[in-house]
Amino acid sequence: MIYELYYWTGIQGRGEYIRLALEAAGAPYRDVAREEGDHVIADVANRLATPSFAPPFLKDGSLVVGQVSAILLYLGDKLDLAPKDERLRLWTHQIQLTIADFVLEGHDVHHPVGAGRYYEEQKPEALRRAEEFREERVPKFLDWFETILERNPEGPAHLVGDRLSYADLSLFQAMSGLTYAFPKLMGKLWPQCEKVNAVCTTVRELPAIAAYLASDRRLAPNENDLFRHYPELDP
Amino acid sequence: MIYELYYWTGIQGRGEYIRLALEAAGAPYRDVAREEGDHVIADVANRLATPSFAPPFLKDGSLVVGQVSAILLYLGDKLDLAPKDERLRLWTHQIQLTIADFVLEGHDVHHPVGAGRYYEEQKPEALRRAEEFREERVPKFLDWFETILERNPEGPAHLVGDRLSYADLSLFQAMSGLTYAFPKLMGKLWPQCEKVNAVCTTVRELPAIAAYLASDRRLAPNENDLFRHYPELDP
Repeated sequence: MIYELYYWTGIQGRGEYIRLALEAAGAPYRDVAREEGDHVIADVANRLATPSFAPPFLKDGSLVVGQVSAILLYLGDKLDLAPKDERLRLWTHQIQLTIADFVLEGHDVHHPVGAGRYYEEQKPEALRRAEEFREERVPKFLDWFETILERNPEGPAHLVGDRLSYADLSLFQAMSGLTYAFPKLMGKLWPQCEKVNAVCTTVRELPAIAAYLASDRRLAPNENDLFRHYPELDP
Repeated sequence: MIYELYYWTGIQGRGEYIRLALEAAGAPYRDVAREEGDHVIADVANRLATPSFAPPFLKDGSLVVGQVSAILLYLGDKLDLAPKDERLRLWTHQIQLTIADFVLEGHDVHHPVGAGRYYEEQKPEALRRAEEFREERVPKFLDWFETILERNPEGPAHLVGDRLSYADLSLFQAMSGLTYAFPKLMGKLWPQCEKVNAVCTTVRELPAIAAYLASDRRLAPNENDLFRHYPELDP
């Protein structure tokens, strides 16, 4: 069965968290909107009994699931990217939900007044929000990731247990976006995040992920994406 | 086994989504910080191998789980508040994640510049964000809830299948907060949300929930909570 991913074209966005899981596992999938255009997302959603509030959503035969964290909960089992142990499976999901919270905060930095208006219409507000994001939120999240790696009874090579899970992939993606958007901030913070850095390096060097990152399926980050590089927000 | 809920005192907050599930099922639980003070949250979290990034978290014997949606995923199975069918169980979770997104937007209306500063320090920004929230986001979410109730093959009495799930409880709680915070807006919108309204009424009238809402365990909404009533944001 070929998985079908439905997500906006032109950005990595939230769809990238699903792509990384599929790519890491070598699972066959179609990135449907990239083949057929963005209109296919609404065309398909409008016919579903369980329409997702927003993309991404994934079809696996007749099963449809939306919301990044729910999709990864499903794929974690199917693609062996989550522990079988029920507690660790739940912990993996909890980490994913926290990464999703962080990614949303990373987006809202440049859209504090709402996603419906352009960044240029909310620059003063973004400047204020970015200050708190840089000084309080990013350090707090990074400290939490370092802490849970430190406390992993199986060692700090992975977020959960002693092997790769979708949480590791998602941490890599979130940190990639963060570093793209805030290179000056992260130039200061990376030396304090050795364990997070090591996980990100491990993910980046997985053969399947390295091949994906070098392919034209991996889009470059840009200023329509969740994480955006606006130099004034990273002084 | 008595469940232990760890969440801030003084507000319904995100802890309320867990309380409603426990109360609806008649499950025995301790609301630990209300008994021992807020300090117990950090005291316990600091000793855990799997510390939650933020409250709430739940202990069930030696199992600990944080993030509202992950806690409800766990309790849904334990308390029979989610379908056994794997697809419907996942759909219930997807709905919960969307409700959680909505609740966060409801919070960020009054804290667009960041949770670290008082509302009074970000009123102009909040006025701008509230406009988009009232005119675009709330109608879009309500329309989605109406749509998925409409498309439920088992009828619109519940969000999933033909019986109560934690998604119904969470919808009730989110709508309670929204109506408290935006009474004028909701005075206009409730007549367009008959199916959502019916689900909320069903939840409110469940004997276990009605008893809970009348008890002193149910705190009144207030201006430290996620949803806050600031009349200037609901003109």
